[in-house]
Amino acid sequence: MAHDPGRVPEDPRRRNLGALLRHVHLAGPTSRTALADRMGVNRSTVLALIADLRSAGLVHEDPPAGTRGAGRPSLVVRPARERIYVLAFDVAVDRLVAARVALGGAVLDRREAVRPRSGPDLDTVVAVLGDLGRALHRAAPADALCAGLGASYCGLIRPADGTVRYGPDLGWVDQSFGTALGRELALGLPVRVGNEAHLGALAEHLRGAGSGVRDLIYLHGDVGVGGGVIAGGELVRGDGGYGAELGHMVVNPYDGRLCLCGSHGCLEAEVGERALLDAAGRPPELTGREAVRAVVDAAAAGEPAARRAVERIGDWLGIGVANLINLFNPGMVVFGGMLRDVYRGSAEQVGRRIATNVLPVSRERVRLRTAGLGDDSTLVGAAELGFAALLETPLETRDAAAAARRVALAGK
Amino acid sequence: MAHDPGRVPEDPRRRNLGALLRHVHLAGPTSRTALADRMGVNRSTVLALIADLRSAGLVHEDPPAGTRGAGRPSLVVRPARERIYVLAFDVAVDRLVAARVALGGAVLDRREAVRPRSGPDLDTVVAVLGDLGRALHRAAPADALCAGLGASYCGLIRPADGTVRYGPDLGWVDQSFGTALGRELALGLPVRVGNEAHLGALAEHLRGAGSGVRDLIYLHGDVGVGGGVIAGGELVRGDGGYGAELGHMVVNPYDGRLCLCGSHGCLEAEVGERALLDAAGRPPELTGREAVRAVVDAAAAGEPAARRAVERIGDWLGIGVANLINLFNPGMVVFGGMLRDVYRGSAEQVGRRIATNVLPVSRERVRLRTAGLGDDSTLVGAAELGFAALLETPLETRDAAAAARRVALAGK
Repeated sequence: MAHDPGRVPEDPRRRNLGALLRHVHLAGPTSRTALADRMGVNRSTVLALIADLRSAGLVHEDPPAGTRGAGRPSLVVRPARERIYVLAFDVAVDRLVAARVALGGAVLDRREAVRPRSGPDLDTVVAVLGDLGRALHRAAPADALCAGLGASYCGLIRPADGTVRYGPDLGWVDQSFGTALGRELALGLPVRVGNEAHLGALAEHLRGAGSGVRDLIYLHGDVGVGGGVIAGGELVRGDGGYGAELGHMVVNPYDGRLCLCGSHGCLEAEVGERALLDAAGRPPELTGREAVRAVVDAAAAGEPAARRAVERIGDWLGIGVANLINLFNPGMVVFGGMLRDVYRGSAEQVGRRIATNVLPVSRERVRLRTAGLGDDSTLVGAAELGFAALLETPLETRDAAAAARRVALAGK
Repeated sequence: MAHDPGRVPEDPRRRNLGALLRHVHLAGPTSRTALADRMGVNRSTVLALIADLRSAGLVHEDPPAGTRGAGRPSLVVRPARERIYVLAFDVAVDRLVAARVALGGAVLDRREAVRPRSGPDLDTVVAVLGDLGRALHRAAPADALCAGLGASYCGLIRPADGTVRYGPDLGWVDQSFGTALGRELALGLPVRVGNEAHLGALAEHLRGAGSGVRDLIYLHGDVGVGGGVIAGGELVRGDGGYGAELGHMVVNPYDGRLCLCGSHGCLEAEVGERALLDAAGRPPELTGREAVRAVVDAAAAGEPAARRAVERIGDWLGIGVANLINLFNPGMVVFGGMLRDVYRGSAEQVGRRIATNVLPVSRERVRLRTAGLGDDSTLVGAAELGFAALLETPLETRDAAAAARRVALAGK
């Protein structure tokens, strides 16, 4: 039951080239036979596709390990990980990260800088990320090609141009982050920017705890709480790209805490970092992931104030998660950022709310997990965003990237 | 950015046949030229597709109205509405409805029965719907073909076999509704069953207030409150098919009213029919759409108790809708069932909550509307479910339906 009248995908060869490259990018080395099988095409079609991707330098073919001389084994196709990479950036609450990520998903090199909680404006953030990115680029082999740029940002992003429409913790409103970072890097490639929790959801769905789970919710907590939802294998973007702002679901309409958004009783106001630290009686100057972990550990060790805090936050988190399970009937809920620690300490409260507030039919198969990619979910998601164009139109994107590199080198 | 590694759609001709038939089913008569253009295929491809659908009796071709003799106008393709139909059924709170719906979407004939609020068990409901369906079938022209059966039910439905997993207002748990109705109708065709609010969302997205809106939320209220969400043009189904149970989002965790699900403070407990009638001081034996409308009208006329009730319910509805806008960033929210009346009376309260609780970026383009299809959203959605197989694989489904008819006739 598709709902768009009369829209038919274009050129099957282009679509198949993208599908094949995406397959080896995500699943790793795969035999010709298996590829033909998975893609539902015949052997001659798959051989032609592989030949095209090989001559573009995007894949290699080898005999499978340990079969040399054993008859005629189907060759194995693997992504050209030493030749093709993206640069991925992550503007997180306490750090700025850049990484060089190979086709196939391996993080080859990474650089980080501390990000102060308040203050850094657009120019500062872009300058720091530019330095990190250039260092990665210089360290790459001379014959390797940068095929795309992706960035994760902890705020609401306009997909078309990577503008930060609203970045509450930095106080950014309508800042042209994607454009500015692209100009700073001067690689002739656009920077695709995504909301950090959307990208975390994508990464956990493709490569993390929820690999293979087609309906998944990712909750990312730090100062605020963001969300990303995969429904039927696709990211829920919304009309403008601002979907899944789970953190601003009102859970406490009576005596809710003030939220950064100006409203009261939002999920993020009740379960974010400050809510936990305040409830545990920690001083206002104490912030950050270590402080959160210390409260959760103290609760486990029996400190009464910490235990009450974790139970209280866990109950609100449970209400939020129960609502989300009723709304999305997910196969999995994944906790990322500091919510990994909060969930670790409050799984009982969360489970109790799910048992009370979720319809039995809607919860019978749901699993709760912490992020499989740890603190790298958002960064890995940014890398996937950087690869997106290559995986849609491999040959055209590779050629455009090669042309951009020639122009950039000529300009130096 | 697709997320499934290496899945490629099958046979382009089959896909195109379905796309073409879907186009004229939804958009109505369309010229050959426009079809080729919309589908991105060349003229000879579109002619071959039309010829296949014509010889299967699924479409006709005519000169466009008023152009006879004016050179060589592109012929217009229209659905064979007098020849191909589905039967659609709706198990709603106060009525049982059956309709014969033509390819192209016109409701050709309909029958209704009153449904008592409590009591009817599976056998009773199936017997009544069977009578209604047989009457419609007998009244159809002898050369018309029933191509599918679809049903809407006010509860949680397992898509694979149309089992009602949970139907709170009838007290049904794990009742094999789809199978039983198919057996009762004895047309040799399966009954596809969907949740009423899912189907309402689909209908409003395809043919109603949200036609062309790719991100849409439909809230359906009667005794309970159900929901259907269209995200990026696709229905949010969830892992088991039980997505969008908006009515069980907890909005009032402190002194929430008892919900039919056993929990407290669910959206449906705060804004459903009973909440409104109780708040207005109406006696418990008063139920139904007319009673709701009378309270909303009394509030508009200035009756203090009714006004307070509508304002109170409107505020809870506003919290629920604000949460949903933050979660889905929809282009439109559509109110159906008795919520059409409630929204009419409480648009101000709902608007105020949206202004207070939704992030500005997330609400800048959202529109709020009542159902364009009125009380027929769910029935129209059931008809679309009945057409789904025909629109996916037109020739195979048509042949299977014709074979089923021969068998059914031979058995009489």
